[in-house]
Amino acid sequence: MNHSTLRAFDLAHLAHLELVTPKPDESLNFFVNIMGMTESGREGDSVYLRGWDDYEFHTLKLTAGTFAEMRHMAFRTTSPEALQRRVAVIEKMGLGKGWSDGDLGHGPAYQFYSPDGHNMELYWETKWYEPPDALKPSLKNQAMRFPARGCNVRRLDHLNLLAADVVQLQKFFEDGLGMRTTESIQLNSGEVAGVWVTATNKTYDVAFTHDHYNAKGRFHHATYAIDTREEILRAADIFLEHGVHIETGPHKHAVQQTFFLYVYEPGGHRIEIANAGARLMLAPDWEPIIWTEAERKKGQAWGLKTIETFHTHGTPTMEHYTDPTVNMKVASVK
Amino acid sequence: MNHSTLRAFDLAHLAHLELVTPKPDESLNFFVNIMGMTESGREGDSVYLRGWDDYEFHTLKLTAGTFAEMRHMAFRTTSPEALQRRVAVIEKMGLGKGWSDGDLGHGPAYQFYSPDGHNMELYWETKWYEPPDALKPSLKNQAMRFPARGCNVRRLDHLNLLAADVVQLQKFFEDGLGMRTTESIQLNSGEVAGVWVTATNKTYDVAFTHDHYNAKGRFHHATYAIDTREEILRAADIFLEHGVHIETGPHKHAVQQTFFLYVYEPGGHRIEIANAGARLMLAPDWEPIIWTEAERKKGQAWGLKTIETFHTHGTPTMEHYTDPTVNMKVASVK
Amino acid sequence: MNHSTLRAFDLAHLAHLELVTPKPDESLNFFVNIMGMTESGREGDSVYLRGWDDYEFHTLKLTAGTFAEMRHMAFRTTSPEALQRRVAVIEKMGLGKGWSDGDLGHGPAYQFYSPDGHNMELYWETKWYEPPDALKPSLKNQAMRFPARGCNVRRLDHLNLLAADVVQLQKFFEDGLGMRTTESIQLNSGEVAGVWVTATNKTYDVAFTHDHYNAKGRFHHATYAIDTREEILRAADIFLEHGVHIETGPHKHAVQQTFFLYVYEPGGHRIEIANAGARLMLAPDWEPIIWTEAERKKGQAWGLKTIETFHTHGTPTMEHYTDPTVNMKVASVK
Amino acid sequence: MNHSTLRAFDLAHLAHLELVTPKPDESLNFFVNIMGMTESGREGDSVYLRGWDDYEFHTLKLTAGTFAEMRHMAFRTTSPEALQRRVAVIEKMGLGKGWSDGDLGHGPAYQFYSPDGHNMELYWETKWYEPPDALKPSLKNQAMRFPARGCNVRRLDHLNLLAADVVQLQKFFEDGLGMRTTESIQLNSGEVAGVWVTATNKTYDVAFTHDHYNAKGRFHHATYAIDTREEILRAADIFLEHGVHIETGPHKHAVQQTFFLYVYEPGGHRIEIANAGARLMLAPDWEPIIWTEAERKKGQAWGLKTIETFHTHGTPTMEHYTDPTVNMKVASVK
Repeated sequence: MNHSTLRAFDLAHLAHLELVTPKPDESLNFFVNIMGMTESGREGDSVYLRGWDDYEFHTLKLTAGTFAEMRHMAFRTTSPEALQRRVAVIEKMGLGKGWSDGDLGHGPAYQFYSPDGHNMELYWETKWYEPPDALKPSLKNQAMRFPARGCNVRRLDHLNLLAADVVQLQKFFEDGLGMRTTESIQLNSGEVAGVWVTATNKTYDVAFTHDHYNAKGRFHHATYAIDTREEILRAADIFLEHGVHIETGPHKHAVQQTFFLYVYEPGGHRIEIANAGARLMLAPDWEPIIWTEAERKKGQAWGLKTIETFHTHGTPTMEHYTDPTVNMKVASVK
Repeated sequence: MNHSTLRAFDLAHLAHLELVTPKPDESLNFFVNIMGMTESGREGDSVYLRGWDDYEFHTLKLTAGTFAEMRHMAFRTTSPEALQRRVAVIEKMGLGKGWSDGDLGHGPAYQFYSPDGHNMELYWETKWYEPPDALKPSLKNQAMRFPARGCNVRRLDHLNLLAADVVQLQKFFEDGLGMRTTESIQLNSGEVAGVWVTATNKTYDVAFTHDHYNAKGRFHHATYAIDTREEILRAADIFLEHGVHIETGPHKHAVQQTFFLYVYEPGGHRIEIANAGARLMLAPDWEPIIWTEAERKKGQAWGLKTIETFHTHGTPTMEHYTDPTVNMKVASVK
Repeated sequence: MNHSTLRAFDLAHLAHLELVTPKPDESLNFFVNIMGMTESGREGDSVYLRGWDDYEFHTLKLTAGTFAEMRHMAFRTTSPEALQRRVAVIEKMGLGKGWSDGDLGHGPAYQFYSPDGHNMELYWETKWYEPPDALKPSLKNQAMRFPARGCNVRRLDHLNLLAADVVQLQKFFEDGLGMRTTESIQLNSGEVAGVWVTATNKTYDVAFTHDHYNAKGRFHHATYAIDTREEILRAADIFLEHGVHIETGPHKHAVQQTFFLYVYEPGGHRIEIANAGARLMLAPDWEPIIWTEAERKKGQAWGLKTIETFHTHGTPTMEHYTDPTVNMKVASVK
Repeated sequence: MNHSTLRAFDLAHLAHLELVTPKPDESLNFFVNIMGMTESGREGDSVYLRGWDDYEFHTLKLTAGTFAEMRHMAFRTTSPEALQRRVAVIEKMGLGKGWSDGDLGHGPAYQFYSPDGHNMELYWETKWYEPPDALKPSLKNQAMRFPARGCNVRRLDHLNLLAADVVQLQKFFEDGLGMRTTESIQLNSGEVAGVWVTATNKTYDVAFTHDHYNAKGRFHHATYAIDTREEILRAADIFLEHGVHIETGPHKHAVQQTFFLYVYEPGGHRIEIANAGARLMLAPDWEPIIWTEAERKKGQAWGLKTIETFHTHGTPTMEHYTDPTVNMKVASVK
């Protein structure tokens, strides 16, 4: 039977990520005033943020710290039972860390490692965002008022991880989390250089590519979605006006056909704005698209060459890097 | 336990519909040259058509006939097992008709009635579209070449049915087909006037509203999606240039926030072009939005009043109407 | 010789207007936070405002007063000599009032009446807008930083006047000001119901239509332009979120093909957001398009019917109306 | 007195150009089926083409020949008198060639050289395009029906020339033709590397840059305009689908802020699609923006580096180049 028909439907969607920034005030200004996100709460060194169409309390937890790193990422499950099923699978894989009491935006979460050392968690109980009066929408089927500020990002779309072992991570996303691979890049050497996986009808919720430095558990970028390519062009105008470093784009990826724009937020993380709604994967038996090295050498969809830093820059930067798997109990991971 | 967490994930997506037209040449010209669809095959009195991003052989079967009617609609399941599970449920409901050998575009299909008499079918085995050389896309993750002709509709998005008994139909879509209600309209009298249901992360795949004439099993419209609101405005320009009757729009619905444009194809069916990608329902525990009569009286999102024909025109028109449920075995329908 | 080839090129463009509002704080909030305009100065009861691409100090002077009225409108000439030539013509017509010392945003202005009693002025010397450091653009060929706030209106586009005698006003715009008629509406009775005139390559800078009440010198609306139709749709979303009354639109006019959206600002004036850049009139011998009554009965471009208030609402409202021509010396007006 | 106030308003607009192609069938297919232009006539080895909003008979004369070159370009004047005034000035400059009887699309034309040897002409009498019944528009203020084919280019926007002596050419455009400089690039050495001039409220109608090979009279590109940046992105998709070489873009120029996309048509000419409507120059006393070498080194607006061929490729290619000024009588050129 076709692999993809076996997916468990246990994961509902990518839920949030926690980014640590050494410049908390500037990063907060970036996300609120330039990206157009909304603060929904604060606790300790963290500010909780969301796009105007994100239904949960937060999709980004911005935490002050000494250097930039992606501290954890989370998925919501489709039911309490689905959560239990996944926990059982992950525990069996030896990657589990155990339960937390939750956070400002959600209930108990099961925490675990990816095989590459990324910190992850799963949860079911969540806190739906409730806008204060000043932010109540005119149409009641909308999470909050359209902000009309900065780039007006709509919702968290996907994350991109770096990994020392891409194939091992793909196996974990498929077998551990029940996600499906939709596209991947396979070099002439046979090496799998990048993989895109999904838990939804979006064509991907997470991507991961090989770390240039063979480092483990690093982070490449997080992406917020807006509706149209025109809004991404306007975002480029806005980034330009505010002196935000534009790394590359706007242009169209050949892989996944995403219209992209990559910038660096003040703390050093790469952030993408993309249009991710139009292209849906409705086929339950979608066979992964495998891009060859020759095809990738053509550059992006319309011919733009990928710039060097896109392959090398990740957070933490190598200056701050330590192997996250050193203290993991990885005995049973295959 | 929350209702919506029980959904069975058995239906993958709305797959296709068959429209009968008394003006087959003009209707075909409309769908191919004005809508920008592509013919993938012919058989008997039918032409098989699809949008450029539809992955299956066809999403529209256009059949010559004496009067306009929607002859059948189909869903694809997420697996062969899912198909068997749904067949069992529908048979138990007494709405089953039995198996067909399939059609040009798919394998064996289980045929059945909706409680309101609409002809429906479910299938698993399908025929993926394979473009001829002249229509092969430049990017291999795309179903076919972008046509650059007419309105360039992308994919089938949803259907809207008329029903004598909306609540009964809602119950069937939820319990029979495992779909989820995302929004509905409830009048002061308590009557449910309209319901939107989904099997995917799209906020709806099917809608149904109360038939003004209390007729059964009629059809309101089918919708093809394109990426941006701007393209819908351009579609209005193109319809204007070709003398196509624009019934209402472009404007934005309050319900589901769809940006809509309704026209009549030459055979008499109402066809909508909409942007349906940006708004996704990722929450697994989405509580249906219930619109009140007072809220609906405000008109569409930006104040446009709904025009009279939108409430009365359906196919078949009342001139050609006969009750489809007369010969149904409906004993066991609750 | 063709009339239009005789135009004098004396007027450079529509420059600004002064709107009186009985709700100055709310009107200011509307123009700054919802429309996205920028304040460039204050004097007495007036605040001076501009769109981000307006090159002059201001295009809107917002003045506190007891009731809504358009107090004056202004054109800039193409040279000092052009100004003198126009003054001579207007004086000869008996419509001149004389010179003012100018205003915060420009030098000496020649003030005069339209034959219908509208207050107008012409000037050459102006004050180019100089953005403070916080508003300096990244690209030096731009007037100021893109605001990324509210509707982000770009520049003043045109004004629409109401007039008791449309033909007389048309004659004044053509012969007195040297503008060209590009389109007009002529009813079956022979009455000219509306006229569009231009001094530039834009297809119109001023429009005027017959006053339903046969009142003189009233104001219909002012229009700010943005780049795309999509931004106008987004503006509708923003107006909806802020409880701004949307009178009609977004839709496309048949006349001039403008994509329009009409709202009422808190003081009572009708304000339009439109896309006015794409359609240019480059032909020096453009023959005016005359729309017939039958053609106008088709409604707007895609069939929308014009709503009643669009024909009746103007400022001042009839409650506050007094005939502005009573004290004019109109002896020599033909 | 300010230079720009002296402009003569004698030129109405850039009117057309003639491109010679060694691959006439493929070039014609490119302009008609991919660009979406319409053929309005044929004569000898030439096909006459236009965008759907071009009001004249043609804006592009496509002529079969042995190698790619821009054979001539033309401006229309604002009146017969304006034509005579310009002819007198050009004759005095010693650049005149004399009168032709006209062409399929216009009446008598005065032909002359640019100081760099480009063939140019001026005319007043023109032939307005009259669409056949099948191409009549629904709105009578439009030149023809919107084609809904390929890129749907709207109108000729501007030309870009290469020149051995940019300053001399600038002087000719200003003094000979009465156009105004709106922006230019001045290198640290003092060399003027590029100049943008206009005869209209568009910010430029012609641009010219220094020829990398110091060749004379060569052609860089011609540009057709469409309304939105989104349509330019879609054009990139369409070019990709048809194997058209995309040289660079879509991206935004810092100079003039044009959103650009450059491709090579089959005959070898560089063709641009751009959005040129939104940015207007209404100021009669616009002071030219001078970009420094340091500013240009920042790349395009959002950081894209200019690719090498953009500086070197022109038509005719150097292989086919001969100095066009050898046989010119250039004695009196200053």
